[in-house]
Amino acid sequence: MEVASRETHLYEQVADKMTRLIEKGTLKPGEKLPSVRKLSLQMGVSISTVLQSYLRMEDRGTIEARPKSGYYVRERPRELPPEPKMSSPSPTASTVDIGELLLEVHDAIMDPGIVPLGAATPNDELLPTRKLYRLLGTVARRHEAASNRYDSPQGNPGLRRQIARRGIDWGGTIVPDDIVITFGCTEALNLCLRAVTREGDTVAVESPVYFGFLQILESLRLKALEIPTHPREGMSTDALASALKKQKIAAVFLSANFQNPLGSCMSDERKVEIVRLLASRGIPLLEDDVYGDLYFGNARPKALKAFDREENVLLCSSFSKTISPGFRIGWTIPGRHIERVRRLKLSSTISTATLPQMAIAEMLANGGYDHYLRGAREAYRAQADRMIQAVKRYFPEGTSVTRPAGGTVLWVEFPEGIDSVVLYRRALEKNISIVPGPLFSPKRQYGNCIRLNCGNTWSERTEEAMITLGRLAERMT
Amino acid sequence: MEVASRETHLYEQVADKMTRLIEKGTLKPGEKLPSVRKLSLQMGVSISTVLQSYLRMEDRGTIEARPKSGYYVRERPRELPPEPKMSSPSPTASTVDIGELLLEVHDAIMDPGIVPLGAATPNDELLPTRKLYRLLGTVARRHEAASNRYDSPQGNPGLRRQIARRGIDWGGTIVPDDIVITFGCTEALNLCLRAVTREGDTVAVESPVYFGFLQILESLRLKALEIPTHPREGMSTDALASALKKQKIAAVFLSANFQNPLGSCMSDERKVEIVRLLASRGIPLLEDDVYGDLYFGNARPKALKAFDREENVLLCSSFSKTISPGFRIGWTIPGRHIERVRRLKLSSTISTATLPQMAIAEMLANGGYDHYLRGAREAYRAQADRMIQAVKRYFPEGTSVTRPAGGTVLWVEFPEGIDSVVLYRRALEKNISIVPGPLFSPKRQYGNCIRLNCGNTWSERTEEAMITLGRLAERMT
Repeated sequence: MEVASRETHLYEQVADKMTRLIEKGTLKPGEKLPSVRKLSLQMGVSISTVLQSYLRMEDRGTIEARPKSGYYVRERPRELPPEPKMSSPSPTASTVDIGELLLEVHDAIMDPGIVPLGAATPNDELLPTRKLYRLLGTVARRHEAASNRYDSPQGNPGLRRQIARRGIDWGGTIVPDDIVITFGCTEALNLCLRAVTREGDTVAVESPVYFGFLQILESLRLKALEIPTHPREGMSTDALASALKKQKIAAVFLSANFQNPLGSCMSDERKVEIVRLLASRGIPLLEDDVYGDLYFGNARPKALKAFDREENVLLCSSFSKTISPGFRIGWTIPGRHIERVRRLKLSSTISTATLPQMAIAEMLANGGYDHYLRGAREAYRAQADRMIQAVKRYFPEGTSVTRPAGGTVLWVEFPEGIDSVVLYRRALEKNISIVPGPLFSPKRQYGNCIRLNCGNTWSERTEEAMITLGRLAERMT
Repeated sequence: MEVASRETHLYEQVADKMTRLIEKGTLKPGEKLPSVRKLSLQMGVSISTVLQSYLRMEDRGTIEARPKSGYYVRERPRELPPEPKMSSPSPTASTVDIGELLLEVHDAIMDPGIVPLGAATPNDELLPTRKLYRLLGTVARRHEAASNRYDSPQGNPGLRRQIARRGIDWGGTIVPDDIVITFGCTEALNLCLRAVTREGDTVAVESPVYFGFLQILESLRLKALEIPTHPREGMSTDALASALKKQKIAAVFLSANFQNPLGSCMSDERKVEIVRLLASRGIPLLEDDVYGDLYFGNARPKALKAFDREENVLLCSSFSKTISPGFRIGWTIPGRHIERVRRLKLSSTISTATLPQMAIAEMLANGGYDHYLRGAREAYRAQADRMIQAVKRYFPEGTSVTRPAGGTVLWVEFPEGIDSVVLYRRALEKNISIVPGPLFSPKRQYGNCIRLNCGNTWSERTEEAMITLGRLAERMT
């Protein structure tokens, strides 16, 4: 784990050094960069570190890959819109009241007749649905009686084994008994929150933060405290540490990898810092890792749970973003809170449905899941890129947008004065769905921000929707 | 509805009159009873009323049907064990603490290697699993993209339409928009309780009461108040009315049809009384109707919801007892609380899985569900009968047992001094699972009672298990 941290740090250093060479004119537009092998020898770092640096520079639009040739300095560095700054939310905790707006938005963004830039659903065309259905048929034939009984509250052992096995990818050393299968990440988050909080408690969250989580807080009558969050680096450790000194916080909720809506990814150093900070104070850390497998870089980032020596992290995740939203299969690895979570699972839904668990277990074991993921990641990266460029091209001057390191969403900040709830309603009249910013804040801040789903395959329809959104926004400036 | 109440009343009167004729010697053992048509004319009641009377008398062991001939007075009236009396629980509300014992029992009763007299799972051999799997394949082919999206929080419209249509059977006038689909009845009960109560509130329940519900109360930090309940007639209206006068009750939980564990079925008169009593006081009534379709009589009893003019009843049910426990599909019709329930569904699990809903909708529409149910009911009735006789034959003198009017469980009361938790553990050593009585009471009363699952097809293994249970209990007297 220590090694991994150093590596991450290194590739950023290498990328920065090479970028400086370009900025200062040592390498001119159109010139070839040193080959990966060569630079690796020159700098005394691993080939994978150099590769990662080059990918990072490519992401930033500084260099480009030419097939079978190598990396080149871009002729005209891509013009990219600015990025949002670190957020600076209100420093006081508050109750949450987004439920009504959310129900309005939720029904609209689920409407299949609409250009779907709203809901963070994965791309239909990428999902391995046919394979999944075939496996569903296979397990149904093989285990005929499976649906005739309630599963154990903890869930199917085969699926738990597969999830544990894949834990190695994110730095985990997990055994099947550490895991409780749930109806999606949402049930997992509910069970974990209920295990570690009481009505009226305060939970610290990123700002902006996934509205689904805010809605859970609202329904459990918990308060939210927003912590300043950087659009690339995630929650500020300093700001969190200082908040912990000032007020009683029952739990912290974090999405370290490709946070929804920012797409930020914490460095391993920051992950270690936060995990230790909370462990030392005995404050449970709820981690949402649903986007973890959809990284744009060349390695799966570690989960916070990977650095959890005190069993203080409650990891929650699901297959809704990678295999099937409609199957509703998620899980949690709740550390030392597992007994309480198991009991809450039993009282909430008894157990998870049997066949879907088996089909997904089969998919993970023999279904070419990794192969599929490789293609999906590449597609999501390209689509995010394309949408960032469309924001630059069509949205009003002064609009900033995130550079997600993974996942399927962008966070757009319009110039002050544009009311995103009004924009949401006007866009809906044009059959385009977006999610207005105030849903991502318990105090309904981010009135001039929206979240865009960039996961769908780019089409003329998408391009036109972006043009329309840009025009609607322009009229409001 | 008024007509239906009169009918129920009537068939009981007819059964009582005919029974008196037998007891007083007007009709001797072996003699034939008047044909259904003849008695209907003589008494001026409908044929269905007479049929229902004869079935009731058959249930009681007074008469027997001979194929293609008619009904006869039994040669030797079956010797039946006594029935338990009306319960008289503690009159004070209390917090619930059954979680630990429940987790112990739950794992054991789910073990498939054991004679399953514990869990209230439906009979494997009766469930229409093959048909269900075939329909699952059909809907997967027909709606390929169904799993690629989140369903609406309220659930699949086709399934809601089928549930609404079947509402006519239990006296409902329901439209699809009245319904929210859930992950089993357990999620429905959670959502409804959370919609109408706050931490610390008291909920009135039958006594004994389904442990799953107690566990939900425990997890939501609600108190339970047990109301005296009659093993045939259900919760005492008088006792409930008097409790309401004495203390603040936030909600009442009732299973009017084939209560688990008693198998009691309230008369329509009592249903009307209770629904009106609670509506007049504005106290929400949670109804659990999971066993409603498994009646032993000749008509589907009405739900409490059928008499609900004030939208004050929150009906909860599922297909776990009739189609598949492992599919985890249930629903609620929460009356005027629907907005709050819909919102809680969204925050708890977002939406229910898509394909299983569609498969069940297809089963209800074109899958021969009613035909299957007819067979299942007949089988469950015969099996309950057989197990009651085994209790008489093998269990200690002085043991009483319920006469369920439907469902798949029996409630057995041993003579004082037999500790059912000890019996449960000793039975488990012999590979037999039962559920000990204290799980059915927030104060862990019913120490000398157990619940038996009588739903499974009778076999030598069952017979031997009953003999073993009888011996184990005998040794404890």
